[in-house]
Parts: sequence; structure tokens; C-alpha cells
Amino acid sequence: MSISALASQWLPVLRWGPKYNREFLAADGVAAAVVTLMLIPQSLAYALLAGVPPQAGLYASMAPLVLYALFGSSSTLAVGPAAVTSLMTAASVNVVVAQGSVSYTDAAMLLALISGVVMVLMGAARLGFLANFLSHPVISGFVSASGLLIAASQLKHLLGVPLKGDTLWQLALNLPLQLGAVHYPTLIMGLAVLAFLILARKRAKPLLKRMGASAFAADLGAKAAPVLALLISIGLAYGLDLASKGMKVVGHVPQGLPGLTWPSSTGANLQLLQTLLVPALLISLVGFVESVSVGQSLAAKRRERIDPDAELRALGLSNLGAGLTGGFPVTGGFSRSVVNFDAGARTPAAGLFTAAGLALAALFLTPLLYHLPQATLAATIMVAVLSLVDLGCFGHTWRYARSDFVALLLTFTLTLLAGVEVGLIVGVTTSVLLLLYRSSRPHIATVGQVPGTEHYRNVLRHRVITQPQILGLRVDESLYFANARYLEDHIAAQVAQHPAVRHIVLQCSAVNDIDGSALESLQTIDQRLKDAGVKLHLSEVKGPVMDRLQRSDLLKHLSGQVFLTQHQAVQTLTLASAPRA
Amino acid sequence: MSISALASQWLPVLRWGPKYNREFLAADGVAAAVVTLMLIPQSLAYALLAGVPPQAGLYASMAPLVLYALFGSSSTLAVGPAAVTSLMTAASVNVVVAQGSVSYTDAAMLLALISGVVMVLMGAARLGFLANFLSHPVISGFVSASGLLIAASQLKHLLGVPLKGDTLWQLALNLPLQLGAVHYPTLIMGLAVLAFLILARKRAKPLLKRMGASAFAADLGAKAAPVLALLISIGLAYGLDLASKGMKVVGHVPQGLPGLTWPSSTGANLQLLQTLLVPALLISLVGFVESVSVGQSLAAKRRERIDPDAELRALGLSNLGAGLTGGFPVTGGFSRSVVNFDAGARTPAAGLFTAAGLALAALFLTPLLYHLPQATLAATIMVAVLSLVDLGCFGHTWRYARSDFVALLLTFTLTLLAGVEVGLIVGVTTSVLLLLYRSSRPHIATVGQVPGTEHYRNVLRHRVITQPQILGLRVDESLYFANARYLEDHIAAQVAQHPAVRHIVLQCSAVNDIDGSALESLQTIDQRLKDAGVKLHLSEVKGPVMDRLQRSDLLKHLSGQVFLTQHQAVQTLTLASAPRA
Repeated sequence: MSISALASQWLPVLRWGPKYNREFLAADGVAAAVVTLMLIPQSLAYALLAGVPPQAGLYASMAPLVLYALFGSSSTLAVGPAAVTSLMTAASVNVVVAQGSVSYTDAAMLLALISGVVMVLMGAARLGFLANFLSHPVISGFVSASGLLIAASQLKHLLGVPLKGDTLWQLALNLPLQLGAVHYPTLIMGLAVLAFLILARKRAKPLLKRMGASAFAADLGAKAAPVLALLISIGLAYGLDLASKGMKVVGHVPQGLPGLTWPSSTGANLQLLQTLLVPALLISLVGFVESVSVGQSLAAKRRERIDPDAELRALGLSNLGAGLTGGFPVTGGFSRSVVNFDAGARTPAAGLFTAAGLALAALFLTPLLYHLPQATLAATIMVAVLSLVDLGCFGHTWRYARSDFVALLLTFTLTLLAGVEVGLIVGVTTSVLLLLYRSSRPHIATVGQVPGTEHYRNVLRHRVITQPQILGLRVDESLYFANARYLEDHIAAQVAQHPAVRHIVLQCSAVNDIDGSALESLQTIDQRLKDAGVKLHLSEVKGPVMDRLQRSDLLKHLSGQVFLTQHQAVQTLTLASAPRA
Repeated sequence: MSISALASQWLPVLRWGPKYNREFLAADGVAAAVVTLMLIPQSLAYALLAGVPPQAGLYASMAPLVLYALFGSSSTLAVGPAAVTSLMTAASVNVVVAQGSVSYTDAAMLLALISGVVMVLMGAARLGFLANFLSHPVISGFVSASGLLIAASQLKHLLGVPLKGDTLWQLALNLPLQLGAVHYPTLIMGLAVLAFLILARKRAKPLLKRMGASAFAADLGAKAAPVLALLISIGLAYGLDLASKGMKVVGHVPQGLPGLTWPSSTGANLQLLQTLLVPALLISLVGFVESVSVGQSLAAKRRERIDPDAELRALGLSNLGAGLTGGFPVTGGFSRSVVNFDAGARTPAAGLFTAAGLALAALFLTPLLYHLPQATLAATIMVAVLSLVDLGCFGHTWRYARSDFVALLLTFTLTLLAGVEVGLIVGVTTSVLLLLYRSSRPHIATVGQVPGTEHYRNVLRHRVITQPQILGLRVDESLYFANARYLEDHIAAQVAQHPAVRHIVLQCSAVNDIDGSALESLQTIDQRLKDAGVKLHLSEVKGPVMDRLQRSDLLKHLSGQVFLTQHQAVQTLTLASAPRA
């Protein structure tokens, strides 16, 4: 590969940058303005969810947006804090902070740094395929449960009490103890914003259209509802001086841009790195899956493509950027990316302009945020995550496939009750185990000749001709370690059942591969059959499988022969075992 | 199932017991005498390897033999301590004893109890298939490394020094520190026995035959070599009073039968149970795999069958028996079972007689064992485990399949250097990951019409006719979570490459299953193609897969149609998209 090709693979900006023109500028500018407006409340809300100071939310949206614009392969993905990764951040940071010796913000920064390193390494090693291990039922169970968990975790801000816990279980046990301390003005403010946002989500667009707004303007108006809620509740809190009456507000947010920082309180703490490694790995995987799904959906609409390994590198660098500028783990978010796409973004430059917009906000708007009630942010989060919860998937999955349902239910339940990490790990393990279990019992048909043809079919489904001394078996699966011993068992059972059998012919038409364990099993089967006076033959072995078998000892020692077709095998063996005249 | 059928499934003794006759008695009696003779030194040696007192070796061979005779489904399997499980016992017991609060023998008994419970539960839940996860390369790497590790661990008895460590690494680091303390009489005794046993193994049989012995007698004579070595070295040690000159001997072995005991020093120690759970699980799996392989091989020679789930129950009960009578984890051993089979055992009663023989030895022979040098036992173990080490498998596996080689090498190296548990766990994980990796990138062929036929074949291998607006794709694998996203990627890339395409026809002739994740991917693909103005069609969908798809929403929303054959699809779509005259 030439240097320029390599450079443009690693730095996609080299591909679109030189072609940038005024038309792109106009489109990207409008999109950036819309996204900036949306991101200000969202960033603050996700910071609250992750448990970090509000400015960390703004910071985590700046450097990552810039880095992704330079290195990312999607033209419309918007990177920043997202709901599920923020929840996972809170859960894992709580654990290490409880162990002491490190500040909360430092632990969150460190988590972003480790996550970034993990993603960059995974990208370099082309390990993007690991995301495939998150099966659909595991992802839906995990995301739905996370949505409920996020909503539950925000109850404390809505009630104005210090509710503790990372799982539904802990939160439910803690809730009754806190009910006496509910701060009613906070609760009223939270419920009002909640009601307003839910109404706006459902009714604002048709209402604005009926009032004569264009489809685009109506859409934009509906999306501005959170900003409106923000402004109104700041106004109320300021006018009624609610902060001095006990309502928790955002408070002082430092004005200015983030500098390069390092999570200094962590020191060279190996134990801490170890504790954060698994959470960082899980956050990376979940973030990557979310990001790639969104990126691919949007790219496909324009017949473009994204490169999963380039995405891993770009997301990794974005996380490193977040970690070095006082942020916390980030990913390509669903809502912000869709808004960016719908608002007409044409190139990653839209991300650069959004970052600039947020920088302006950080420079000039933060004093405005002092009186913003935390209950308003909590309500914003709750409405946003409601769309994550999809209980309908339980019904679909139950009807479609029971084993998927098991994985879904287990992931959902454990995420809610035992926490995000346990839920995800057990879910992934379960779906792999169920897969192996299913493929460990392949369909093995006893076959016989369809009268008048050279075809051999299942004796249970067709009227076929069989010979007492010849047993034809067709395995409908590649042979590998998880099903090799099942084949041994099956053949042993068949031989024990049919004492007259002298030849077994394995029809291998559906066998795409035979791994080392299955090879060993075939040798064992051959040996055992030999001891019992039965010969083992193969038929219809595919080319690549035959090439492989020829590199082993199996064919040298095989008691029987390899036939081109099942019919040839049966004909030859029938003639050979016929009594001589 | 009737009560008597159920009873005879759970208690196989009810099947063979009533038919027992004098002929069986004679055969089983001879076999039991041979096996008893072999088991006395072997039981003492494995007790030494496991780190428990010598009598524990005898005890672990009695109750388990009786229980297996009643509950086991193999007529010739002999249950007792085995090399690899004894090594694993030592490794895990060392860990908990180092943590304090429990005696070594109690920890070994507890390990057998947990192992027994695990196996009984696995048998009840029909989880015998879990043994399939131990792929052949993982087992060979593990067994070879265990053999080397066992030999290395016996060096201390051969040298007469307190060499410490559970891994080759630890032993190698400790060895130079101990060389100064080598007890030369012990070393000479050990090397002499080693040389005698190796010679006996290679030469005794032909020598005895040349001296006029029958084949059976020669075989028996060769097998008696360890007993002879035992007697001679007891004689030497007693005659020269080597024990008082610093040679480690077996010493006082309590005379009598084991009573029912309980590992009392463990108390209700949950932490201890937790620590031992994973080792017990691994010992159960390894023991089960060894036992079932041996049992199946022997059963097949007589066209009999064993029932893996019944085996799990019987082995579990045997381990419970071992744990409650002062023993340690047991399994169906390879060498003792083969000897039992070769000596003509006909029914499990041979096991009962062997247990009786060992009981007599425990009652009357233990004073004889006082002067038995530990170096003799160590030499016995070393010779026995040499047959476990098979370095040839590295060459075969490398030639046959590279991914199997990776699993083999990793298991072998880690077992030697990081210990038996790490080696086994990493090996199993690696073989599962490699399997998923391979099946995550299925072969997807672009197909076209073979001229003059209705066949559709790979465009890369055949000269075929294609249409610019129709893309035919054949996936050679079932669709499931690990390859669903690969299909998404592949189709996205194809559509981006071929802007003229308006129809994609997925030929599903090789798809045996579509799981929930793959269904979701098909819906996503359909949606994305719709956005790009392309229709998705399916052809040649198998019956069971179609049944399943009809329970989902896919077919309702599919942009294209489902065709019976690829040819019908192409014909219909060509006609439909032809410009009208």
C-alpha cells in the first residue's frame, strides 16, 4: 500500500478535507448549530448520570468530537457521553472510589484512558469481530435493563434524597429509608419537567405543524423542547431562589476550555488499573457496538460504508482525548448522530463546528447554568432512556427462538439485579454456551436408497431401501470438538442396536470442516468399530476437507474406503459381501 | 417409565446382579486378584503425589470401587486415584492450606466431596455434554504438560530434598537452592528402581516369553514388576536400616478399614468452599473425560454401551464415598481399567472383589509398608506418567490445523508454567474463541447462472451469466449472532461496489438455522437496502427455517419476495425490470 493510501486510511480527513467547499460548509454549519443546542443539556445530564461534575460532560463532548472528525470513517456519527456507557462508568467508578485512594473524577478519566487504549489496540489487532459476541438478545436485554436502571438511578435527583445503589435491588431496599426526606419542591419541579418533555415528545411536532410550521421547523422545534425546559426551570429556580430553599442545582461550573490534565491522584496504582480493566473492556465493547450500529445505519442511507477497525481506532482516540481533558468514557451516541444526520450534516466537519459551539458555551454560558435544578436534568435523562426500554422484545424472542429467550431473560434480570457488568458477562457466556450446546447435537440421519434412483435420503422421512449389513449415516453439520463425541456416542449406539451391521458409510456432503478433535474422534470410532468387526467408510467428502484429511494419518489406517458417492459405496459393499455362487 | 426400569437405569446392578453365575465369579475373581496386586503400589504412589498420607490412597480405592460397582454403567471401569486428578488435587489443596485454618487431609476430602456433589448434580441435569468443551488439542496439551509436571514434582522424593512449587517454573527456580542437600542413598535407590521399571516395561514381556511363559503369564509377569520393585526395595531398606540413615520411608500406616469421617477442621467455611469450587469443577470435568474415554473404548470392544449421565452420577457417588472415608478425588483410571479388562473381568463384581482385596491389604499388609522408600513410589509414578507425555501431537496438529495448534501450545505452556487450572481454563476459552472466530467469517459466494442450466454457481470458480441489476449471494453457513454482522458488512460492501444493483437474492440452500440475532440483522439489512433503493429477496429457504421465519415479522415487511429456487428469482426479477416495449 502506498504511503498516501495508508495515510488516508488512518486519517480519513485527508480524503474529504481537500474537497471541502462552501456548500458543505453551509450544510455542516446548520447541523452543528442544531446538535450544539441539543448537546448542552444532554452533556450536563449524562455527567450527572456518570456522577462527574457538569463541566466534565461538556469537556467529554469537545476533544472527542474533534478527534473523531479527523480519524473516524463515518461522515455523520457524533461522539460524546451516552446513556448506557455513562451508567457503566458510574457503576465501575463507584467500586474503585469506595476502595479509597482515588478521586471520583480521576477514576472516570482513567477509565476513559484505559478504554481508549483498549479500543486502539483492538483496532490495531483487527479485533472488531469481538463485538459479534454480543448477540442481539443479549444487547436488547442489556439495553432495556440499563434503561430501567438509569431511570431508577435518577429517582434520587427527582426526590432530592441521597438514594444509594448500583442495582435495582439496592435502590429498592434503600428507597423506603429515604422517603421521609423527600424535598417536595424538587419533586414538583422534576415531575413538571418530566410531564412537559413527554408531552413535547408526543405532541409538539403535530402541534407545530398545525400552527403552520414546515416539517423541518416542526422537527427542530420538538427537539428544542429540552432546551426550553432548561431555560424555564433555570428562570424559575433563579426567580424563586429555590437553591437557598434546599433544591439541588448544578451550581458553579468553571468558565473556560478544558486543559490537558492527567488523573494525578491515581499514581502508578497497578491494583487500580487491574480493577478498571474489565469494566473498561466492557464499556469499550458496548460503546463500539452502539457506535457501529448507528454509524452503519446512517452510512447505508447514503450508500456509504464505515470501516469497523477504523472506527475502533477513532473511538479509542476519542476516549483518550476525553480522558486527557477531564472527561469520561464516550461513544458514538444514537440520538445525537441521528439529529446530526437529519439536520443535514455532510462531512465530519460538522463535528468540528459542534465542538466549537460547545466551546463557546463553556466559555460564555456556564454562569447561566448555576441555577439549573438537577431535577430538570434527571427528568431529561429519564425521558431519553425510556426509548431504550423495549419490553416487546420478550414476546418476539419467545415466539422466535427459546434459546435466545433464555439469554435475553438472563441478561435482563441480572443487569437489573446484579449490575451491568455481571449482566453483560453472564449474558455473553450464556449465548456462547447455548450456541455450543445446540451445535453439539447435530442432526444425524440414517439414510437409504430412494428406489429407482441413486439418491440416498433419511429413512424416517422417505420410503427407502436399506441393507442389514450396511449402515449409511449423514451428519448435517461440520464436525468439531463440541459435537465429535456426540458422533462417537451415536455410532456406538447404532452399532449396539444393529448387530448385523458390518459396514458404516458416513456421508459427508454437509460437512464443511473437520477439526483436530473430530479427526481424533473419527480415528477412535474407526478403532472401536474395528474391534467390533465393523468397517468405517466415508463418502462424498468435500474437496477442502479431503485435502486436510490427506495431511493426517486417518486415511492410512482407515479400515474401510473413501467413496465418491454414497451410491457407489453401497453398490461396492453389497457386491463384496454377497455370498459367492 | 416403569419403576423397575427407572431403578435399573439408576442402579445397573439390578440388571446384571440377578444373572450372576459361577462362570462370572471365576473370571471376576482372577481379574480382581491381578488388579489388587497392581493397585497397592499405585494407590500409595498417587497418595504421595496428591500429598496425602499413604493410607488415604488405599481408602480412596475401596468405597469408590464399591459404589461404582453398584451405580456405574461400564462393566470393566476401575475407579480410584489417578495421576492427573491427584496432581490437580495437590495444586488446589496447597493453595487453601497455605491460607491456613484447614488441615491438608481435610481439604483433600472436602475437594472430593464438592467434586462428588458437582458430578451428581451435573448428571441429574444431564450436563455430560459439557465435557465436549474440552477439545482434543486442549486435552492432549493438558495431559502431556501434566505428565511432565508430575515427573518434575516427584524429583523431590528422588533427591530426598524438600523441593517446593506447583509449576515447572517454581520447581526450576527452587531446584538449585536444594541441590546441596541431596540425599545420595535415596537418589541411588530411586534411580535403580526407575531403571528397573523402564527395563521391565520394555523387555520383561519378550524375556518371559523366551523363557517359555504363556502370553498371559508373560503379560502378568511384566505387570507385576512394580510389586517386585516394591518388595525388593522394602527388603533393602529394612535390611540396611536405611530409614535411620536419613532415607524417607512411608512409615507407619494405620492398620484397618476406613471409617465414616467428615473433614471436621473445615467447619462451615463458605470462603473455603468458594475457593475449592472451581478446582473441584475442573477436577470433575477432567476426571469425567478420562473416565468416559476409557469406559467407551472398553465397552465398544464388547459392543456394549455406557451412559454418560449415569457415569456422572456413579463417579459423583464414588467421589462422595472417597470424601467420606478419608480419601481424595477419584476417577475411572486408564491403566487399572485396561488391566481389569485384559485380565478378563466380566461384571462390575470384579470391582467389589478388588475392594475386598484392598481391604485385606489394609487390614494385614500395612506393617510391611513401613520400610517402603518414598523414592521407590516416586520412581513408580515417573514411569507411569511418561506414557502420558506425547510430544508427537505437536507435529500432527501443526500439519493438520493451525488453530488447533494454537490451543494445544497455549494449554501445554500455561499448564507447565502457570499451573493446571490456568492452563485448562485458558485452553478451553481459546478453543471456543477460535471456533467462534472461524464461524464468524462464513464463506459467501456471489453466484451466477451456469449457461444452459438452472444451476447457480460461484462467479469466481465458474463461467456464469450475471445481470447488472441482480446480485445473487450464497452463504455457506447457518446464520447466527457471531456471523450476522459479517453478513451486514458484506452486503453493505457489495451494494457500495455495485451501484447498478436493484435486487439482492440471498440463496439460503446452506443455511440450517437463523437465530434471533441473524433475524435482526436480516431486518436491518432489508431496511438499509430499502433506504438505498434495493430490494432483498430470499431463495431456497429450507423448510424448518421457513417455519421459523413465518413466526417473525421479517416476511411481512420484506421489501422483496421469497422464491422457491434461485433460478425462479432471477427469471422473475429480470422480466419485471425489463424496459417495457
